[in-house]
Amino acid sequence: MRIGIVGAGQLGRMLGLSGLPLGQTFSLLDPSAAPCGRQIGRHIRADFHSIKALTALAQECDVTTFEFENVDTSALQALADAGHQVFPPPVALATAQDRCQEKKFFRELGIQVADWRAASNEAELRQALTDLGDDVFVKTARLGYDGKGQRRPSGETAAELFRVLGSVELCVERRVPFDEELSIIGTRSLTGELRTWRLCRNEHRQGVLYQSRVDAVEHPLQSQADEYFRRVTDALDYVGTLTIEFFACANQLIANEMAPRVHNSGHWSIEGASTSQFENHVRAIAGLPLGATENNQWCGMQNFVGALPSARAVLQIPNCHFHHYDKTVRPGRKVGHATVTAKSRDERDSALEALAALPVWELT
Amino acid sequence: MRIGIVGAGQLGRMLGLSGLPLGQTFSLLDPSAAPCGRQIGRHIRADFHSIKALTALAQECDVTTFEFENVDTSALQALADAGHQVFPPPVALATAQDRCQEKKFFRELGIQVADWRAASNEAELRQALTDLGDDVFVKTARLGYDGKGQRRPSGETAAELFRVLGSVELCVERRVPFDEELSIIGTRSLTGELRTWRLCRNEHRQGVLYQSRVDAVEHPLQSQADEYFRRVTDALDYVGTLTIEFFACANQLIANEMAPRVHNSGHWSIEGASTSQFENHVRAIAGLPLGATENNQWCGMQNFVGALPSARAVLQIPNCHFHHYDKTVRPGRKVGHATVTAKSRDERDSALEALAALPVWELT
Repeated sequence: MRIGIVGAGQLGRMLGLSGLPLGQTFSLLDPSAAPCGRQIGRHIRADFHSIKALTALAQECDVTTFEFENVDTSALQALADAGHQVFPPPVALATAQDRCQEKKFFRELGIQVADWRAASNEAELRQALTDLGDDVFVKTARLGYDGKGQRRPSGETAAELFRVLGSVELCVERRVPFDEELSIIGTRSLTGELRTWRLCRNEHRQGVLYQSRVDAVEHPLQSQADEYFRRVTDALDYVGTLTIEFFACANQLIANEMAPRVHNSGHWSIEGASTSQFENHVRAIAGLPLGATENNQWCGMQNFVGALPSARAVLQIPNCHFHHYDKTVRPGRKVGHATVTAKSRDERDSALEALAALPVWELT
Repeated sequence: MRIGIVGAGQLGRMLGLSGLPLGQTFSLLDPSAAPCGRQIGRHIRADFHSIKALTALAQECDVTTFEFENVDTSALQALADAGHQVFPPPVALATAQDRCQEKKFFRELGIQVADWRAASNEAELRQALTDLGDDVFVKTARLGYDGKGQRRPSGETAAELFRVLGSVELCVERRVPFDEELSIIGTRSLTGELRTWRLCRNEHRQGVLYQSRVDAVEHPLQSQADEYFRRVTDALDYVGTLTIEFFACANQLIANEMAPRVHNSGHWSIEGASTSQFENHVRAIAGLPLGATENNQWCGMQNFVGALPSARAVLQIPNCHFHHYDKTVRPGRKVGHATVTAKSRDERDSALEALAALPVWELT
């Protein structure tokens, strides 16, 4: 089967690396001259929003997926309506692209979210801030990622905030005093078979994922997260890998957002789990049975953002695996990661500590 | 670093799949029009024995390796003599290419081999058969693999045998009444660091590997095999992954042959071990530290030769991983394999049994 991927960054490359052994081949649409995903398939250089290019991609492929969220969902929907297989379903992408829609969607499924208000002008923003208090995040409803398109107000007027965020639809969220940030990643197959990985504890720095940890024992909130995952994916008649990020607060899960794709907090699964998030995504969209997702080791992931330690430095640390995205290093750019698989929590945590002591982080 | 690989078959593809995440890129030399290794690097279409092509490969790469043994070692040695990095060292390939040399080499290192005689004409063959008795294998000293270039005599005269095997240098080996066929696979780094995987028990059918099994507990002959591995690789100042195949006979290891490359009996390590034979080969030749090789699951491998079951059929069996080499299926051709990783011996063995019930084998 030939799989089309919208986007040819590291997620596309990891999808390809896991899919080639399954006998799948890939075409990847990306506007960059030399995206790293070109290493595992045919690179079609074109804009993500070009309907012509999307159609060309679909024409040479049996199924189209995406590794990038800022895609024109109506174009994807048009392909699906014309009978082409597009997985995950465009409706999932449309829901995830709008923070306000996403929150309504979670609520309808009985999944708790932070108190929030939509605001499409200064007056509504002023009212939202009055309703929710000072301790909030103000986020653009659309096109935000990795901490971009959001502010935590510190004395600005509603007018200033509205302007600085681009005078667009906003979503104002009361800040959740969380104990942990967790993500559940799972895959749903064409036949509705579900597999989730163990809950992942994430540490963000300035909105960007810094480290993830997945234990060899079950997190107390696993079954609640699994149940929410089931509700979300059933409601969307989802096919592929999906991620829901939660705040854990007094033993309750509060949904923050979802990503209808493979996710940075699931990279550990390449070495850490029986089947990775990438392989199960490929299996799902290719109509194949899913693989087991268990991990019997203590796993961790360190992101390399704006800085990339040498392979030697990473691999000298026991239990580490290195992923170099073959991208030019620029501040704030995700250029690699390392995975730790260890026999104990201590071994895992010391490897992560040793990784964090390398040049791994430069945002600006 | 850019790595040149002589050969672009499935071994080359698996080397690439494990090396791309490490930031390595690949060029592969292969005479086929569309070898599966082309999926992970630049394919240079030329004959394996073309000195010009080998030189061109070396010129665009930082290091050259091979996934295929019938390469002109003098050409590789010439590259090495000219200062280009060639790993494993060509002397290892030269030793492995000649069964008689290989046996002498094992003997010199105190490693037991089957009783044997070299025979370069009818008379020597007749004498060898007189010395060793009827229960022997007669093999061409060079260019044999996968059971090709060998005969087990059943009444033919020495003259007939000599002619049918091509009237070339022969190696006559007394048959070993083995309890098990085992292989030790390991990697030696540029700095002499050694890592071996757990002993693999192999079942061959008509000389071709059918299934492999690696247990989650140590085989009683592991330390002896590790010691032999150390002697062989130290003697060759080896860099890369190497395999030695043994007969186990009354708790003694009798060396059969070695392969100075990644090996079919090590494919299980992709999913079964912390670091695969492919990744450690790439790490070694790129001058990087080696990764841990342990496995804590019961592993198995089923080869697909001349027949390829569907991905669906394979993946429906619990604990199975599928490798489709993207090659045209022809009798006798290795076109894929499946790996089993399981929590118990029984689980592993039933998965292998289920795999073997699929269309997996057609030699002629």
